[in-house]
Amino acid sequence: MLGSRKKFDIIIEGGTLLTMVDGEEPLHDVRVIISGDKIQEVSARQDSPLPETNEIINSEDSIILPGLINTHGHSPMTIFRGIADDLPLNSWLYEHIFPAEAKHLNPDTVYWASLLACLEMIASGTTTFVDGYFFADEIIRATDKAGIRALVAQGVLDFPAPGVPDPKKNLDVAFEFLERWINFSDLITPGIFCHSPLTCSAGTLLKAHEISNRFDLPLQIHLSETQEEVKEIKKRAGLRPVFYLDDLGLLNSRLIAAHAIYLNEEEIDILAKRHVKVAHCPESNMKLGLSIPPVVKMLKKGITMGLGTDGCASNNNLDLFGEMDTAAKLAKISDLDPTLLDSRTVLKMATVGGAKVIGLENRLGTIEAGKKADIIIVDTNTPHMTPIYNPYSQLVYSATGGDVRDVIINGRVVYRDRQFTTLDRNDIMARVRRLSRRIGG
Amino acid sequence: MLGSRKKFDIIIEGGTLLTMVDGEEPLHDVRVIISGDKIQEVSARQDSPLPETNEIINSEDSIILPGLINTHGHSPMTIFRGIADDLPLNSWLYEHIFPAEAKHLNPDTVYWASLLACLEMIASGTTTFVDGYFFADEIIRATDKAGIRALVAQGVLDFPAPGVPDPKKNLDVAFEFLERWINFSDLITPGIFCHSPLTCSAGTLLKAHEISNRFDLPLQIHLSETQEEVKEIKKRAGLRPVFYLDDLGLLNSRLIAAHAIYLNEEEIDILAKRHVKVAHCPESNMKLGLSIPPVVKMLKKGITMGLGTDGCASNNNLDLFGEMDTAAKLAKISDLDPTLLDSRTVLKMATVGGAKVIGLENRLGTIEAGKKADIIIVDTNTPHMTPIYNPYSQLVYSATGGDVRDVIINGRVVYRDRQFTTLDRNDIMARVRRLSRRIGG
Repeated sequence: MLGSRKKFDIIIEGGTLLTMVDGEEPLHDVRVIISGDKIQEVSARQDSPLPETNEIINSEDSIILPGLINTHGHSPMTIFRGIADDLPLNSWLYEHIFPAEAKHLNPDTVYWASLLACLEMIASGTTTFVDGYFFADEIIRATDKAGIRALVAQGVLDFPAPGVPDPKKNLDVAFEFLERWINFSDLITPGIFCHSPLTCSAGTLLKAHEISNRFDLPLQIHLSETQEEVKEIKKRAGLRPVFYLDDLGLLNSRLIAAHAIYLNEEEIDILAKRHVKVAHCPESNMKLGLSIPPVVKMLKKGITMGLGTDGCASNNNLDLFGEMDTAAKLAKISDLDPTLLDSRTVLKMATVGGAKVIGLENRLGTIEAGKKADIIIVDTNTPHMTPIYNPYSQLVYSATGGDVRDVIINGRVVYRDRQFTTLDRNDIMARVRRLSRRIGG
Repeated sequence: MLGSRKKFDIIIEGGTLLTMVDGEEPLHDVRVIISGDKIQEVSARQDSPLPETNEIINSEDSIILPGLINTHGHSPMTIFRGIADDLPLNSWLYEHIFPAEAKHLNPDTVYWASLLACLEMIASGTTTFVDGYFFADEIIRATDKAGIRALVAQGVLDFPAPGVPDPKKNLDVAFEFLERWINFSDLITPGIFCHSPLTCSAGTLLKAHEISNRFDLPLQIHLSETQEEVKEIKKRAGLRPVFYLDDLGLLNSRLIAAHAIYLNEEEIDILAKRHVKVAHCPESNMKLGLSIPPVVKMLKKGITMGLGTDGCASNNNLDLFGEMDTAAKLAKISDLDPTLLDSRTVLKMATVGGAKVIGLENRLGTIEAGKKADIIIVDTNTPHMTPIYNPYSQLVYSATGGDVRDVIINGRVVYRDRQFTTLDRNDIMARVRRLSRRIGG
């Protein structure tokens, strides 16, 4: 078969390209050439004849853009999608989610629910996701099977947790997890996810930080997500959560803080100064009735921000297109200013912003020669995407994840004409349905 | 062909049915029988053998529910989708939208852009919409061709308007419009849409009210949408907008107030007392950076509310599923209470609530014998709709309009397996694209 090997692997022909490179305007009638796992060349289609290639993807009547990056989630929670909604925060968490996790999570549910999440993310244009949960080995196995890029972290907290009945061993489990997966695949990065400053002691946080540093890996944490957290940390440590973590020495450019809602000016300043990355989860924050984080202020202070869906128990889907739309609209109504978080800024958060959050901006987040070929193609030949005056605006305010037609990750077509090439969609859905019957409503 | 006529016209077989009748729980494995334009019977599938019928729609792995009702919009504005986003309110309206309308609206653009809106609404599960715009005859022609149900109103304001260059004739035009269409079709109700208390004088409002009363038809108005409106009306009349309209005698059960954002307690009370109907447009309000209306308070006071998308220049789509999701989440974050506007309440707003807003609750809004057959079927055999614990929650928090697979309006299948039966999708999109090229960005 070597003889049939063409010069290039995939050529995307036609359509409007948003490279998401700073200062670059939309390009029309383009050609994107992919060779191996990388983008080889971006050009105008008419500039040269079509080179020999193994695969041509016709992308007329489409928008081509970098794959979206979901900077915060718990993918196996697809199994709990809609299990407990519209409830008071503490009832939701302590009476429904935690008990359901304790009772129903095992390697099997985590594996299949993660595969379901991969189906959903791929089908809505996410090519990289950041995850933190339990039985994280199974998330990696699912992720690897799907061919999606991910930062998968083992959850750590100081209570008995699914798969980690003895909290004294939580960091041993995490350490072994990192050792096991650190050199496994170019697409998958392991990590540690400290549940929150509330549920992890100072000792646990310090050790998780130390291990992450040793491996040179990002550390994730839910930070300033609830008022209760702020109150409790102030009571325990005499400091607001951000200053508490700073005191512990945890704030650095490898820390990914999810939510980051209840922040005062000084906390925003210190997050910026320490180059902490923030994952903004607007739909989850809204649905849980939390509060609106100071996103525009954080961006103005230079904080690197991405968008996250959070888990399916508080959203209830993994569609980053919806998240972009909500992020833009929420910022506007929060500050009563329709000019805030314009569509291009929001799309940057979901692409280059996300790449920076995970420290992979040299490889991901834009479409330019030399970058990894993580590319999505959005169908615009539909009523709700017609007409088009501004492609950024169309993607953020008119599209949904369902408009994604093709997805390429690391130079491999994982979704073509809305068909999955790496996963058996019907089998995965059937397995999760069967598992869900034991869980009930 | 009379000989081939079966006893029933359409039978929907299988799936989960949400009748949206108060107190009724979801029914599983159902059969819905449609005869002519009406629902004949709702039953469990196993109760009897399948009767003879002209058409069977298999709806296993689906949720069947009443067609959604969009209580506020300007359908021809699809032609301006994304033309001017992320701008200050006055620049958006006075420098972009009004000039674009003045320059580009004519019967042809309104007709084709309305057809595009009908495509989009049908494909996202809307079976009835409330509209107010100019060249409204063309909206009715499009609506009639699509086979969708609508309350279509001729826009009235005291400035030269598209199709009504002489504002002195605005109410003559509206009166003739009502006369022309009042007996045209069972699906289409004509009406008058007064643009706002700011742009219509007291005399114009009174006359529009008087004409609407004479025809026994709903009157629409944008009410308390902007702070400028509140300030100006207070300056002109010494009263806040709701009291100003009450003073004029405009507040009654036939008035549909769109937006209703800036309201104090007394205004909410008077709207409730006068049985004014309110169209809540959460996405438009957010995108324009207006403010969050007191939705929960209004519902508590017994005000009948529906959901509306508003026009595509401020949303930018006509997807009521998105609107339900946003309405629920916005209420929760507005009052920092995740129990507010639960999924069932929101789905009621989009169905029975909408039917009450237009005074057609005896015919529309629920699935029960004797009601008009306005029914949609949502595909749940997809990753993001798996698993299902709570169908209300699934529709509001996980679905998008793109999950709608079949749409029946007035007993006629207008969308089957995602194919339009009444409209030529590609032709309409091509026409609108051609028209949009003259408009530019």
